[in-house]
Amino acid sequence: MGVLTVLEGIGVFAFAMSGAYVATQKNMDLFGIYTLAIVTAMGGGITRDVVMGRGIPVFFTSYRSFFIILVAATLVLFLKNYYKWTFIITIMDAIGLAVFTVDTCIKAAASHYNLLSFVFMSVITAVGGGVIRDLLCSRVPVIMRREIYATASLAGALLYWAIYRFAGELISCYVCIAFIVAFRLASVYFRFNLPRIRRGAAGEEDG
Amino acid sequence: MGVLTVLEGIGVFAFAMSGAYVATQKNMDLFGIYTLAIVTAMGGGITRDVVMGRGIPVFFTSYRSFFIILVAATLVLFLKNYYKWTFIITIMDAIGLAVFTVDTCIKAAASHYNLLSFVFMSVITAVGGGVIRDLLCSRVPVIMRREIYATASLAGALLYWAIYRFAGELISCYVCIAFIVAFRLASVYFRFNLPRIRRGAAGEEDG
Amino acid sequence: MGVLTVLEGIGVFAFAMSGAYVATQKNMDLFGIYTLAIVTAMGGGITRDVVMGRGIPVFFTSYRSFFIILVAATLVLFLKNYYKWTFIITIMDAIGLAVFTVDTCIKAAASHYNLLSFVFMSVITAVGGGVIRDLLCSRVPVIMRREIYATASLAGALLYWAIYRFAGELISCYVCIAFIVAFRLASVYFRFNLPRIRRGAAGEEDG
Repeated sequence: MGVLTVLEGIGVFAFAMSGAYVATQKNMDLFGIYTLAIVTAMGGGITRDVVMGRGIPVFFTSYRSFFIILVAATLVLFLKNYYKWTFIITIMDAIGLAVFTVDTCIKAAASHYNLLSFVFMSVITAVGGGVIRDLLCSRVPVIMRREIYATASLAGALLYWAIYRFAGELISCYVCIAFIVAFRLASVYFRFNLPRIRRGAAGEEDG
Repeated sequence: MGVLTVLEGIGVFAFAMSGAYVATQKNMDLFGIYTLAIVTAMGGGITRDVVMGRGIPVFFTSYRSFFIILVAATLVLFLKNYYKWTFIITIMDAIGLAVFTVDTCIKAAASHYNLLSFVFMSVITAVGGGVIRDLLCSRVPVIMRREIYATASLAGALLYWAIYRFAGELISCYVCIAFIVAFRLASVYFRFNLPRIRRGAAGEEDG
Repeated sequence: MGVLTVLEGIGVFAFAMSGAYVATQKNMDLFGIYTLAIVTAMGGGITRDVVMGRGIPVFFTSYRSFFIILVAATLVLFLKNYYKWTFIITIMDAIGLAVFTVDTCIKAAASHYNLLSFVFMSVITAVGGGVIRDLLCSRVPVIMRREIYATASLAGALLYWAIYRFAGELISCYVCIAFIVAFRLASVYFRFNLPRIRRGAAGEEDG
């Protein structure tokens, strides 16, 4: 699982950077920046462990993840041209999305969850951190607006469910990570979206 | 409990519709619409199961509820005149509120909770989904602004507590469902509200 | 532990008042006011008990806390000049912050948590109620904007961790409560803050 650990580290790093960056955008103080980095990187996993009733969330006991988060958030403080890094951060974030999804797939499969629980837990773990980040910043969660994001996680979890029984854990793991990363990056590159429902006149929109 | 199952299905259906509808109002994509439908219908029950420490939330294992939610959300996509349906949806939503409340009352009574836990869990289950829906949409939770909604759930839970020991589970169940539905619909029909506290000049209001 | 119980009561009282006050500012109805008082006073402790997997949250079984909350919220309804009371409320709130932090430190130490879990749980308990209050009011959580607040809780938890093994539970407890209250009030009085990161032109700020 050496490769998975490295990929997970990259995911934590990318999620922490995105949290810290949003905090600087919102003009928060140092506490807010580090808090948002921690919450974004750990939120999904903590939610999973709490909902699954696994006792103390695994992230609370992981010094390595915590250290990665601190480094990532500190890096954002000194980054002058964050926008120039957007390309690299998007790739890292896609890796994070993929690894967090598959990570939970492995655990859920080992616990013999049914399909619904399996998919819900995988997607919640992958996108939960970002949702909590956006809630703490009083904005509509990005996953509910933007391009294909949670959908890539969902499709990857379904793929894992479909193949892991005969392809084995290791192969399914890498296939699904590659699939989610490719799906997510393709959606960014080609700017394709899920359809929206346009509804009536502008006057009705302010529900 | 055949009737209760049917009523619960109606409640899930109504909650899912309200979630999907708010999502279309907020111009979300398909993923957002189905997510909000799921969250609204399942959020209360999941919160209850997590807070009560019941392991995997029961909704995660219920294919029937999931199917009902998908149908309800899909229906909203094709509904042209949502406003014309407001009357029916309000009634269904009131049934959902009542059934979710009483559902938890039954479980809490079986677990011999004290009055505080009993009431809290019942109300959280009934209104939790709507609160999460509104949080994900960046608006003040409707239950904290509008007419009598959570109050009807609260009154119903107290009524159940008062009568179930001598009236028995079945009778208490139907009495409380009828009471909550009637209380809620009466408050909508007669537009009565709980009093608010008016405070000072307008300048102070923007806390 | 008689003194600790009294201090905890003061904390619950202050937190409930702040919740009720924000609700009146937001023009909520009576249900919203009491709900926000309850959520603010109980939210941190409930979150702690849920994340720690402790079964039914202790607050749900505490009639004393519930009674204190009702009194505090009712008092706010009748308070004419809330602003004149700001000084006293700030002190009580600082006591609440301190007691909630140290309360969790004691429990976490007894459960032999590692440093990360120890600190996270303590801070979450102390500030969680305020965060949930602000989420329900659709505003950026105050702790992410304002003066030193969560930072005082964090520093106090670290202090407890550093001294409790040789100073004993009782002394550590009072030392840390005094430290957090002093730290918090000093930051209010001298208006010192954590640094923020100023970033680029105004056009970039609206992330």
